[in-house]
Amino acid sequence: MGADRFDGLAIVGIRDLLLVTVSSDFHDQLAVRLKASLSDRVRTSGSRAVVLDISAVEVIDSYITRVLNDIGSCVRFMGAGCFVVGMRPAVAMTLVEMGIHLEGIRTALSLDEAVTALEAAR
Amino acid sequence: MGADRFDGLAIVGIRDLLLVTVSSDFHDQLAVRLKASLSDRVRTSGSRAVVLDISAVEVIDSYITRVLNDIGSCVRFMGAGCFVVGMRPAVAMTLVEMGIHLEGIRTALSLDEAVTALEAAR
Repeated sequence: MGADRFDGLAIVGIRDLLLVTVSSDFHDQLAVRLKASLSDRVRTSGSRAVVLDISAVEVIDSYITRVLNDIGSCVRFMGAGCFVVGMRPAVAMTLVEMGIHLEGIRTALSLDEAVTALEAAR
Repeated sequence: MGADRFDGLAIVGIRDLLLVTVSSDFHDQLAVRLKASLSDRVRTSGSRAVVLDISAVEVIDSYITRVLNDIGSCVRFMGAGCFVVGMRPAVAMTLVEMGIHLEGIRTALSLDEAVTALEAAR
């Protein structure tokens, strides 16, 4: 276990998971820093999956979505899975209206659900 | 078991796996020779899967990625699986930035993880 902290987000390693809790003010700069540090953490920790908890995020735009997609692809290339959990209805509706897909990112209602899905895939 | 060696890479047969360890100076010529010799080895050895360990590779370009995709398709056509393991964060980020997909190639964090996944699928 170990934690990195930036303003606005925390990366915590729990067993073979990297749990990223994103706060409400998730902005572009933060998304880019997250991308860089997450892939390093996946390698050093040997995590099997990254779970991004975005339940606090109230607004999302196309740029942040692109960064999320990039994180998903990057983590997948390295051999781990990527989950986004706790997306709010309003955020989900925005993504639908923008015609955005989260490619290669799995979604779950909650962290619990994501952990259950990962255990099933073991 | 048996091993082929080129400058810069080694192909080792372990049970029903072909393990390819690629060294840091993986260049275009090597990628092409690997493509040719791997498919022959899959046929003669009757391997169930090819695992490409690229953990030493620090730089990758679109041509080498295409050859990797070709190897994946080729091996899959022959009925075996193809894994890429140990991709570095910087390499993963490059692929994402180039908008490249590894089609039909599975990824794993390490050789261990790939073997576990293969055993689970048996």
